[in-house]
Amino acid sequence: MKNRVITISREFGSGGRTIGRETARKLNIPCYDQELIQHLAAESGFTEEYVKEQGEYAPYSGWLNALTGRTNGLTNQDHLWVLQRRIILDLAEKGPCVILGRCADYILRDSADCLTAFIHADMARRARRIVEVYGQREEAPEKRLRDKDKRRASYYQFYTDTAWGDARNYHIALDSGVLGIQRCVDILAQLF
Amino acid sequence: MKNRVITISREFGSGGRTIGRETARKLNIPCYDQELIQHLAAESGFTEEYVKEQGEYAPYSGWLNALTGRTNGLTNQDHLWVLQRRIILDLAEKGPCVILGRCADYILRDSADCLTAFIHADMARRARRIVEVYGQREEAPEKRLRDKDKRRASYYQFYTDTAWGDARNYHIALDSGVLGIQRCVDILAQLF
Repeated sequence: MKNRVITISREFGSGGRTIGRETARKLNIPCYDQELIQHLAAESGFTEEYVKEQGEYAPYSGWLNALTGRTNGLTNQDHLWVLQRRIILDLAEKGPCVILGRCADYILRDSADCLTAFIHADMARRARRIVEVYGQREEAPEKRLRDKDKRRASYYQFYTDTAWGDARNYHIALDSGVLGIQRCVDILAQLF
Repeated sequence: MKNRVITISREFGSGGRTIGRETARKLNIPCYDQELIQHLAAESGFTEEYVKEQGEYAPYSGWLNALTGRTNGLTNQDHLWVLQRRIILDLAEKGPCVILGRCADYILRDSADCLTAFIHADMARRARRIVEVYGQREEAPEKRLRDKDKRRASYYQFYTDTAWGDARNYHIALDSGVLGIQRCVDILAQLF
């Protein structure tokens, strides 16, 4: 029998990570996020920081990426994708869990009994949240959000060939800004 | 104080209409669908059939539409849009309700305390459902669905300038095929 897994894709600053963790805690199952990055770092030999960035975001310049970091025609990012895919399949095999981001919804579509969720919120709410959680940076929060969104969407599109954030790719999509984080947790836990 | 209104956008064949009606029944508030069409027909002088088709779907050929049915530079569809907008604003003013389709989410974004929902399901489930609900036609159900989806999306895009079906345009989006109609009703009623 396939394990029940919740995958959470999220816009940067939407509180998706908190929702994933809280849902897992409520259901008493593991939530893979940082742990997944550590696995990937250990197996690939790259640093955690590098894995975090390259395993979910398209590079700043596709053109530059086309020329650098290639072995046998694969980019570092392609290598990470292959590893990431295998680790996510293994984790889902181990037992029920919550998996954050990293195209897990797409990777597990045929191999787990998935509930796939997408968490989003409007720009103003996310801008406030990233300043609260990650602090001020030189760059305006709106600029940081737009950049992250764009690169995450582009990464997702490249490896899954479907549109990130299209409601039809997820079983449930929630606006955490309007509904509130706790309500999102309650709905997901209830649907599990 | 603004009235609480649930707007439901839905893919053809996803059971969104049933979900809207059941949610309204559960909450003991009116659900506007057929009634909205009757209002529009009465006020515009067009038949209900015409209003049903033109008030939510882009015409088969944009090019043909560009040349026909125009008065003062407005197409029949533009006139219907203006009427539809006013009727939806009036209904939301009257009291809490559920409103099905017709870009109500967009029209009410600033004037009601809205919960905006999008209901979808995969092609195979929708194809089965439209044959069950509306019967067989000469045209294959998949072809009917693709045509309806395309024209509804194009109508929405034209009048709202945002993408139909993008999760970020709705507070909640639900896959009625995977979650089941009753569960969708329960979640919406609970969030009201």
